[in-house]
Amino acid sequence: MIGKVYLVGAGPGDPELLTVKALRILQEADLVLHDDLVPAPILAQAPPEATVLNVGKRCGKKSVRQADINARMVMGARQGLTVVRLKGGDPSIFGRSGEEIEALREAEVEFEIVPGVTAASAAAAAAGVSLTHRSIASSVTFLTGHHASAETPPDRPPEQLAGGTVVVYMPGPDYGGLRARLVAGGIGDETPCLLVTAASTGNRTHPTTVRRLAEIRPMPGPSILIVGSVATSAHTRSGIPGVMSFNRHAEPVTYPIVGKLA
Amino acid sequence: MIGKVYLVGAGPGDPELLTVKALRILQEADLVLHDDLVPAPILAQAPPEATVLNVGKRCGKKSVRQADINARMVMGARQGLTVVRLKGGDPSIFGRSGEEIEALREAEVEFEIVPGVTAASAAAAAAGVSLTHRSIASSVTFLTGHHASAETPPDRPPEQLAGGTVVVYMPGPDYGGLRARLVAGGIGDETPCLLVTAASTGNRTHPTTVRRLAEIRPMPGPSILIVGSVATSAHTRSGIPGVMSFNRHAEPVTYPIVGKLA
Repeated sequence: MIGKVYLVGAGPGDPELLTVKALRILQEADLVLHDDLVPAPILAQAPPEATVLNVGKRCGKKSVRQADINARMVMGARQGLTVVRLKGGDPSIFGRSGEEIEALREAEVEFEIVPGVTAASAAAAAAGVSLTHRSIASSVTFLTGHHASAETPPDRPPEQLAGGTVVVYMPGPDYGGLRARLVAGGIGDETPCLLVTAASTGNRTHPTTVRRLAEIRPMPGPSILIVGSVATSAHTRSGIPGVMSFNRHAEPVTYPIVGKLA
Repeated sequence: MIGKVYLVGAGPGDPELLTVKALRILQEADLVLHDDLVPAPILAQAPPEATVLNVGKRCGKKSVRQADINARMVMGARQGLTVVRLKGGDPSIFGRSGEEIEALREAEVEFEIVPGVTAASAAAAAAGVSLTHRSIASSVTFLTGHHASAETPPDRPPEQLAGGTVVVYMPGPDYGGLRARLVAGGIGDETPCLLVTAASTGNRTHPTTVRRLAEIRPMPGPSILIVGSVATSAHTRSGIPGVMSFNRHAEPVTYPIVGKLA
């Protein structure tokens, strides 16, 4: 009796944005270890007899230590269980999968990674923009807002970010520090941005600029910040940089929150 | 009778990596306009009475002009059809959605973007690596190999890529030009890389370095190149940079090709 661990991307929140594979594996799980951001309608897809544990890390709350998560995964597989380690978005993008992969390899436990829709893709879809554009953005960089905090070593050289689209995961709450980091990376203060909150489940899209980031009050719900010329294309016809009419906000596309899947 | 256009991400190729939403919408389609890379088992999900057209662009073959694709989408929606514009991966990442979004806005046609699993996520999952890592890669940049070609204007300043993971979409066939571009961006010649071919459908993972990129012979099937320290973690226990034992290739994780979905 040999178990297996699946590191599964749950996508951005809308249960319909689970992949068919993630849904199938979740429906076969014996043990589900999930992040904080995975919403209840997705967890409800696990069988009623499965053990479902929140092992999420969240600012200000006591969290399960990484070593404990690793031990639970390994122990579960050795007991012959189908273990699903369920993460928001995609496991390979800011999912802290690196340490878990190492632990599973070291324990010689069979595992498989099931990719998911990352939050940047969901935010772009909700805002009606493309993150890359043949004529205005030939690359896209994902980073987190965490590094904008005071913990950043002062001798760390700034990243060079100019030229492509930048997507900031977990941008809050230090928007002033984030602005400084973006500017240090070569991004102009007048560069347009879109702050997308709760991208896949009834989103709000808020257009702004790098300069005005510090004015943002943190909003409830997970957010994504899209920085670059593509951010104007939600609001202008041409999407050409220089046409900075990003205050003319188009009607946001709204998505119903989907309940229990069939 | 009002139609609607869906710009839908088909994911990396494995039909099980469609999202539940993409599958549902595809199963309701009247007209499917798809890219070349979308495989037959996914197209088979469309209803038998739907019109399914390949409008893909592929090197060396005659392709449908963008204006014709736009016109077909708009016309279909105005005829009251459910039009699915089906793209490989995620529509917002190298999916050329920008022009199509502009055309749909201009025509005042209702549209919705359905995000998908991008190829980088699938490649990382197949190779058993994380694209970001708390200690060795705090950002990830996606770019295409196309710009490494001779068409790149010589006065274009090189992107600054050092410090995070870089994922190159469509890296071939000019691997020598790609090496030059990466080095110009500040990436060391000894940086490890993983070339992942056909990530979600029976993949092959090939470890190499930036220096040795020029030795690569183009392989059949869509490829993704992962560049950076995270590329070693597929092959070492620690995943710590400096431990460059990326020739000890771990057993690749294999995925069965999934046929018709239930």
